[in-house]
Amino acid sequence: MSLTPTKADRFSFGLWTIGYNGTDPFGGPTRPALDVVHAVEKLAELGAYGLTFHDDDLFAFGSTDAERQKQIDRLKGAMADTGIIVPMVTTNLFSAPVFKDGGFTSNDRQVRRYALRKVFRQLDLGAELGAKTFVMWGGREGAEYDSAKDVQAALERYREAVNLLADYVTDKGYDIRFAIEPKPNEPRGDILLPTLGHAIAFADSLERPELFGVNPEVGHEQMAGLNFTAGIAQALYHGKLFHIDLNGQRGIKYDQDLVFGHGDLYNAFSLVDLLEHGAPQGGPAYDGPRHFDYKPSRTEDENGIWDSVSANMRNYLLLKERSDAFRADPEVQEALSAAKVDELSQPTLNPGESYDDFLADRSAYEDFDANAYFGAKGFGFVKLQQLATEHLLGARG
Amino acid sequence: MSLTPTKADRFSFGLWTIGYNGTDPFGGPTRPALDVVHAVEKLAELGAYGLTFHDDDLFAFGSTDAERQKQIDRLKGAMADTGIIVPMVTTNLFSAPVFKDGGFTSNDRQVRRYALRKVFRQLDLGAELGAKTFVMWGGREGAEYDSAKDVQAALERYREAVNLLADYVTDKGYDIRFAIEPKPNEPRGDILLPTLGHAIAFADSLERPELFGVNPEVGHEQMAGLNFTAGIAQALYHGKLFHIDLNGQRGIKYDQDLVFGHGDLYNAFSLVDLLEHGAPQGGPAYDGPRHFDYKPSRTEDENGIWDSVSANMRNYLLLKERSDAFRADPEVQEALSAAKVDELSQPTLNPGESYDDFLADRSAYEDFDANAYFGAKGFGFVKLQQLATEHLLGARG
Amino acid sequence: MSLTPTKADRFSFGLWTIGYNGTDPFGGPTRPALDVVHAVEKLAELGAYGLTFHDDDLFAFGSTDAERQKQIDRLKGAMADTGIIVPMVTTNLFSAPVFKDGGFTSNDRQVRRYALRKVFRQLDLGAELGAKTFVMWGGREGAEYDSAKDVQAALERYREAVNLLADYVTDKGYDIRFAIEPKPNEPRGDILLPTLGHAIAFADSLERPELFGVNPEVGHEQMAGLNFTAGIAQALYHGKLFHIDLNGQRGIKYDQDLVFGHGDLYNAFSLVDLLEHGAPQGGPAYDGPRHFDYKPSRTEDENGIWDSVSANMRNYLLLKERSDAFRADPEVQEALSAAKVDELSQPTLNPGESYDDFLADRSAYEDFDANAYFGAKGFGFVKLQQLATEHLLGARG
Amino acid sequence: MSLTPTKADRFSFGLWTIGYNGTDPFGGPTRPALDVVHAVEKLAELGAYGLTFHDDDLFAFGSTDAERQKQIDRLKGAMADTGIIVPMVTTNLFSAPVFKDGGFTSNDRQVRRYALRKVFRQLDLGAELGAKTFVMWGGREGAEYDSAKDVQAALERYREAVNLLADYVTDKGYDIRFAIEPKPNEPRGDILLPTLGHAIAFADSLERPELFGVNPEVGHEQMAGLNFTAGIAQALYHGKLFHIDLNGQRGIKYDQDLVFGHGDLYNAFSLVDLLEHGAPQGGPAYDGPRHFDYKPSRTEDENGIWDSVSANMRNYLLLKERSDAFRADPEVQEALSAAKVDELSQPTLNPGESYDDFLADRSAYEDFDANAYFGAKGFGFVKLQQLATEHLLGARG
Repeated sequence: MSLTPTKADRFSFGLWTIGYNGTDPFGGPTRPALDVVHAVEKLAELGAYGLTFHDDDLFAFGSTDAERQKQIDRLKGAMADTGIIVPMVTTNLFSAPVFKDGGFTSNDRQVRRYALRKVFRQLDLGAELGAKTFVMWGGREGAEYDSAKDVQAALERYREAVNLLADYVTDKGYDIRFAIEPKPNEPRGDILLPTLGHAIAFADSLERPELFGVNPEVGHEQMAGLNFTAGIAQALYHGKLFHIDLNGQRGIKYDQDLVFGHGDLYNAFSLVDLLEHGAPQGGPAYDGPRHFDYKPSRTEDENGIWDSVSANMRNYLLLKERSDAFRADPEVQEALSAAKVDELSQPTLNPGESYDDFLADRSAYEDFDANAYFGAKGFGFVKLQQLATEHLLGARG
Repeated sequence: MSLTPTKADRFSFGLWTIGYNGTDPFGGPTRPALDVVHAVEKLAELGAYGLTFHDDDLFAFGSTDAERQKQIDRLKGAMADTGIIVPMVTTNLFSAPVFKDGGFTSNDRQVRRYALRKVFRQLDLGAELGAKTFVMWGGREGAEYDSAKDVQAALERYREAVNLLADYVTDKGYDIRFAIEPKPNEPRGDILLPTLGHAIAFADSLERPELFGVNPEVGHEQMAGLNFTAGIAQALYHGKLFHIDLNGQRGIKYDQDLVFGHGDLYNAFSLVDLLEHGAPQGGPAYDGPRHFDYKPSRTEDENGIWDSVSANMRNYLLLKERSDAFRADPEVQEALSAAKVDELSQPTLNPGESYDDFLADRSAYEDFDANAYFGAKGFGFVKLQQLATEHLLGARG
Repeated sequence: MSLTPTKADRFSFGLWTIGYNGTDPFGGPTRPALDVVHAVEKLAELGAYGLTFHDDDLFAFGSTDAERQKQIDRLKGAMADTGIIVPMVTTNLFSAPVFKDGGFTSNDRQVRRYALRKVFRQLDLGAELGAKTFVMWGGREGAEYDSAKDVQAALERYREAVNLLADYVTDKGYDIRFAIEPKPNEPRGDILLPTLGHAIAFADSLERPELFGVNPEVGHEQMAGLNFTAGIAQALYHGKLFHIDLNGQRGIKYDQDLVFGHGDLYNAFSLVDLLEHGAPQGGPAYDGPRHFDYKPSRTEDENGIWDSVSANMRNYLLLKERSDAFRADPEVQEALSAAKVDELSQPTLNPGESYDDFLADRSAYEDFDANAYFGAKGFGFVKLQQLATEHLLGARG
Repeated sequence: MSLTPTKADRFSFGLWTIGYNGTDPFGGPTRPALDVVHAVEKLAELGAYGLTFHDDDLFAFGSTDAERQKQIDRLKGAMADTGIIVPMVTTNLFSAPVFKDGGFTSNDRQVRRYALRKVFRQLDLGAELGAKTFVMWGGREGAEYDSAKDVQAALERYREAVNLLADYVTDKGYDIRFAIEPKPNEPRGDILLPTLGHAIAFADSLERPELFGVNPEVGHEQMAGLNFTAGIAQALYHGKLFHIDLNGQRGIKYDQDLVFGHGDLYNAFSLVDLLEHGAPQGGPAYDGPRHFDYKPSRTEDENGIWDSVSANMRNYLLLKERSDAFRADPEVQEALSAAKVDELSQPTLNPGESYDDFLADRSAYEDFDANAYFGAKGFGFVKLQQLATEHLLGARG
């Protein structure tokens, strides 16, 4: 297989990612703004297929209609010139002072109305540009202090907003689904819907649950110490993986937004394995965009932006290559079998077995030798992990 | 109000909590076993109303039927003598070597069958003793290595098991509901259903979702850096708070199981406030057992066990007292109102407003002065938090 | 005692703290700049005694000499008018693009020279204003990637820089000591000298170790999950607590810079207890400024700035009040004694005991009954902690 | 180079590591005890050169002198048969109930005396067996509650104990140095000397500092979110890396003790690179034992023990191979140079430059164009990291 990215790989990048100017809590910009046309051209040249953006990435907050339209037209021109598409759009409800307590769930009702209108406008633009997914990252929907936010009311306001959006896209016939992006904290002390689990539970409770899924981000789940691959498996299990944000994070700390593959390498490996091949014994895999939501390090100039764009895609392809070899290795298959990984796909009950049958099966309990597991019947998980390690390190075959 | 616990406070304790013998990863027991009859008598004396237990807490793993029955009878006698009830039971699927890769989701199918039978047996006992909640903590359902566990298959096996249990309790007419207890890690590297969000999402997907809720534990959510009170609010919002485990944890580290109130004191305060009073503007509160799942510190002898039992209950009551005063304080009410905490309960849309109406409302967007939020319209959250602090410290009134 | 702060309490605030404009990684300013004269007047009015600042807080990076002098003069005027002093100054080596890889340890030698000159300039100004402490927070001294930074060389460059500074203050006769402020991460992936332990070890290795100590910040140590009070105790033990930064942090996450007391309340209580009273059996306490290095929440307008200034000081005084009561409570003294907390101050060896004597003492080993500690000789730590809890909650006396 | 371990690689294993029986906080043993003679034979067969042990690993706590001697003799026999040496020993001051509040710093003075005697005895045995390093892991030296432990007194008692030990080894002429092993928490809520920085600072303060260094463990520093390689670099810088514990940890959670290389792979790579090659521009590297302090997963039987022993060594050698290739790659050298990694080894001052000279150099400050770093002068760190990634993945050459 090739390590050169092509449009068939469906790699997409946020305009805010490559456009990140280096501002962080302790310093201002280290790079100038990046023009959207230049961005699209470079992405196309490097092998990406898609660009995504918040409204305010393309046209500054507070733009006049004319300024806004000019930027939209410039983007459309670049798309036509390069074949780059816009698979996803999203709305910025977090940067401007008006959103200091959030958008959909600000305690201030006027702000909620303003936020919702801003989303409607971006939703129309997304539909116009052919986006299939509308991401909602509620970064300011949260609080620093428990008494400052009625979480149940916040969930009710979030529901009210997104039910209305779902009615709207349904009535308009937009081919768009919504993907909630969870994050546990930063910039708020605690954020609503902090993990993909919380977001799926919420999505299930909406009026049109089929329109709502999740857009998990590698670093966001890892900021809670959670296993990203395991979370993605659960999202797939519930049919809720609508979109994905790939990047790198090194443990529980501030949101680092490193290049994909520059964080937890084992978990990146198992993630690509899952996305590309599905579960070991089959099971749904993901066929949407491979979207990179990262930040080129603040130490870099524009060369570093494009180096990091390429690194994201190359790491994905390298891990895919290693995953292919891992799956094809007979010794791995043997170790998986010895570890009974496949046996977990067998139902626990016999075909047609009722609970009465089961309760009557003495071999299952009364005659079962539970003590035989002491000092024996090892699962061989360490051996399996070592095989994974050696494939990851390119040390086999 | 009184700081002396009574049965009306519905305080319950796990037999494994007061019976904890001090074993940890680096040391053996520091205390002898605690007899169940003595335990029940002391709990009654100190003001608790309930005892909960795993099967293996009451009768050792591998007990004969006679040994098992003898212990059950001794427990029943103590219950009759003291009025202590058993509001919840649960099964130990994690201590014996047979469960080294889990119970419901062990890769080994024979183990899964054995585990499920063990649960059926304890479920019958729970029903016999009048338990209303059956807790399932899947502490060993997980993995250290991503390739060792097919998470989607694991969820499918978990589903198979609990759907069968739900059929059984329904057919038998047991008045029992199931509460899944999430935990992110320890003793496994990553545990299935790591947070209450993941567990609710899973519960929603079952055949009889109304029978499945969650049993969140303070420390377990805090081990993922999550805000416990906010999580409980979401569980209440979804109608899924079936049971609760109260204890103390000091940040992201091993599972400490400290006394309730000896961990994150702010979050304990907001939790008691939520459980006792519901949301600021109303909303469902919790009326089940206040269950303490903690461990008396390994440094203590039996005196420390009973001191810690009393400390758990006293801290709950002290925080309740402070919460009552917080709610009643006019200055707090004024600060909540200034912070627009109540305004979040107002729908964002006007009564009967359609999206067409809303999109036509120029005051919501075109004529809205978003810039007015710069340098003004502060929310007063710090002032509110300071009032909470002073109530918590007993420094007002 | 009084809960109204006075200059005798030695409360100081960073100009960058009250001047924080609300910028964070996901949003721009929510408040305008704060004028230094107004800041000094308000601090004086609210009961503080000191102002601290980075060079760039007072005069913008790149100011002309005239602009710089004008601001210095305005500050001096305000100091004279209010009696506010400047107990500490520090240099900003982290905000401007030139410092994107650090100051003293930038890989770029020209940047290192520039940084060092910037520090000399601020050092002279500090001496002129009467500052006794020069804080060095090396927030950009670090890396995201292990191969990007030679840590040993970085330490050598740091040493070179600070040895020169120490020679300079010695020769000039400045009455200034240097306090290194550790932080584990943010804004860099990993920061040099990540904890107070690392910083003390480094300080010990310098040419004039007596001039170098630490300026630990509550949140910085807690971002590594470390116990701040325990760290301060070790800093005191080594005579290295030259300055302290008080604020609030809620666990391992981004740097929150909350109001002191709005984070980990137990640890804040034990910290104030240690600073005000020293060790339980005596031992050095701290007599320097109580310096607040926090950020008024981004949700607030100017009222929130002053509310938070007052909250910091009031919480310190409230905790001091509770600490006084804790120490004075005979039941606490009894519990401390039962827990043998005082016995730890007794030498382990007898007076004059040599190792030969000790090895010959059969009562120490051969005849010592180690098994007597099973099921007995509990330390009563839980009881002691409960007494601390009740004092903290204002529930005793 | 070879991936087959030999004695020249100086790989050593703790007897407690391969002998780990699977006990954890939620379950008992899953494997029987491992006999020391068998252990030594297997280690020799698999390519290790050394065995290390706590006293209680070899002979159970409370053994008679005869039982103890028998086990020592059996070990000596196995050493003679296999050529395995004992490079390090240590004492168990944490498992028995008597140590429930620690050993050297227990609040109970009699326990402190007993602990110190136990250490003396093991020190003599270590000297007899030729150990060059005496490790001290103070796992129980700590507290759960701040008021339960006077940290300054604890440090004073720790000092008293180790100063005495240092006098003893000096007088006896033992060729032994002491290595303090830091850990932030678990099994205590907070442990004394929580990081290698704290331990070095303490070591510097002792009477014979040259005899005291550190034994950092990969997972222990990573449990505080700290960069292990950076910490090792600082320990080398101070000449304090006396011994090292290699294993794997996946983030901030309980102490996992995974196989080396099965945790944070990037950091393992940079660690091996540092240990084997020293700093990029030279600087001290480490020539002591490569000691694995890990636990074979509880899911495994004896096969898993030996598979994991081999995996530890093989991963080290694989990473060494990749490190060799990384250093030899001209493109890497070019990228290091472009990133000015080497320039950090150049003194910031010119040869012979005084601070007067430096302050007079207008090119360093007045004429230096700090603004030139905006949008330019990128460091190329992302490119360098990508090269490291590709070497790690075995994707180059």
